[in-house]
Amino acid sequence: MKYIESVNNPKVKQWKKLLTKKERDKSGTFIVEGFHLVEEALKQGEQVLEIIVSDKVGLPPRWDAGSTPVTSVTEEISTSLSETEAPQGIYAVCRQSNQEVQDAKTMLLIDAVQDPGNLGTMIRTADAAGIDAVVVGRGSVDIYNSKVLRSAQGSHFHLPIIRGDLHEWIDKLQDKNIPIYGTALEGASAYTDISSGASFALIVGNEGNGVAKDLLSSTTANLYIPIFGKSESLNVAVATGILLYYLKK
Amino acid sequence: MKYIESVNNPKVKQWKKLLTKKERDKSGTFIVEGFHLVEEALKQGEQVLEIIVSDKVGLPPRWDAGSTPVTSVTEEISTSLSETEAPQGIYAVCRQSNQEVQDAKTMLLIDAVQDPGNLGTMIRTADAAGIDAVVVGRGSVDIYNSKVLRSAQGSHFHLPIIRGDLHEWIDKLQDKNIPIYGTALEGASAYTDISSGASFALIVGNEGNGVAKDLLSSTTANLYIPIFGKSESLNVAVATGILLYYLKK
Repeated sequence: MKYIESVNNPKVKQWKKLLTKKERDKSGTFIVEGFHLVEEALKQGEQVLEIIVSDKVGLPPRWDAGSTPVTSVTEEISTSLSETEAPQGIYAVCRQSNQEVQDAKTMLLIDAVQDPGNLGTMIRTADAAGIDAVVVGRGSVDIYNSKVLRSAQGSHFHLPIIRGDLHEWIDKLQDKNIPIYGTALEGASAYTDISSGASFALIVGNEGNGVAKDLLSSTTANLYIPIFGKSESLNVAVATGILLYYLKK
Repeated sequence: MKYIESVNNPKVKQWKKLLTKKERDKSGTFIVEGFHLVEEALKQGEQVLEIIVSDKVGLPPRWDAGSTPVTSVTEEISTSLSETEAPQGIYAVCRQSNQEVQDAKTMLLIDAVQDPGNLGTMIRTADAAGIDAVVVGRGSVDIYNSKVLRSAQGSHFHLPIIRGDLHEWIDKLQDKNIPIYGTALEGASAYTDISSGASFALIVGNEGNGVAKDLLSSTTANLYIPIFGKSESLNVAVATGILLYYLKK
């Protein structure tokens, strides 16, 4: 196992740069942190490029790192890579997903969701609901942001999570006659009025403004979740869960 | 309007103490921050004791503060009361709810949920679903924690949110023949197998450990949400939304 002690080592500098979206995009890689996420990355295998461990922790014996290179670093270097308050001292550098999703039958399209906790929770929820792919449109927080990765709890390694132009995706889905459901407060049907089939796409949107009007005008139908009490709206991740589990039935 | 300039003013010291659970409990009050929450507090009216505004902001003209005392303070005092990164300069001191919930027909019982964002989102979701009352059991984050209040977006003023012993509540609900549904991964039925009536109570639990076993053994039935993909579980607030909207139908 390689051991790095100097914070000025070029590898350390490169890892630290992965904390920025700019470098993640340039390199086509991202970094995950903590035992759970690194284990999920290893289980999936294909995307993992290397593992980094603090010299205060080791790889759990039950893990199979296979031929993935593992580098041990000082606690100081380890902590400098962390974006959490209680670093666990373990990281994996992974390749960004470039998976084909042309044959996806169920999709979640996300328009301009800005809170990383919300986006990560929505990705985790889509995974749980057995959705085939998630497309994240412009104006959303980066899908490889560390808080998005943490909230998604490893779902990035379970299904394709890609960036895309939502207008283009609507066109593609329409060509395949897959019904597309937007979410809107006006001009929409109660979600329970829809009975979905084996294929569908759901579009959910920004925390304050919802889904953009020009997207809503291209959907098969727009849905709303009735508010029975006095709150003005639901959290977008909660709404996504209610709708995906209803449509998936 | 009273104006306070000194950070050593006894009122300022008392307000600051409300940032701690200890003082909130001792005084039976809590403090909310920001235009949306203060407006929701004023709309409800009964619980609001006083309003505090920075001398850099004013009350929006459309608000009706009625006879509620309003105190203007320096920006320095205002900022010292804030628990957000971008303080809006407006606060309300409110009385803790002591509402009777004996005639509630639908209830959400929360066991040891520790993340304030989750607890607040669950309270907001219960409000949206038209649930009559929320009981928060021991081991949960304080219901008047500032992040719980922010995530709940004013729902504290829309329905009774109370602390309570969940075992006692289960006994009371059983006496009234209200079905109680726990949530569990083992020994449970898929939630879609249940058809609920006009009355029910749902118990949801801790992010890592779920609902305590001794609570689950006293329920009418325990439910699980099927995982169709590869994620291990759903976020507790998302799960609460799926179940409440299913049961409420």
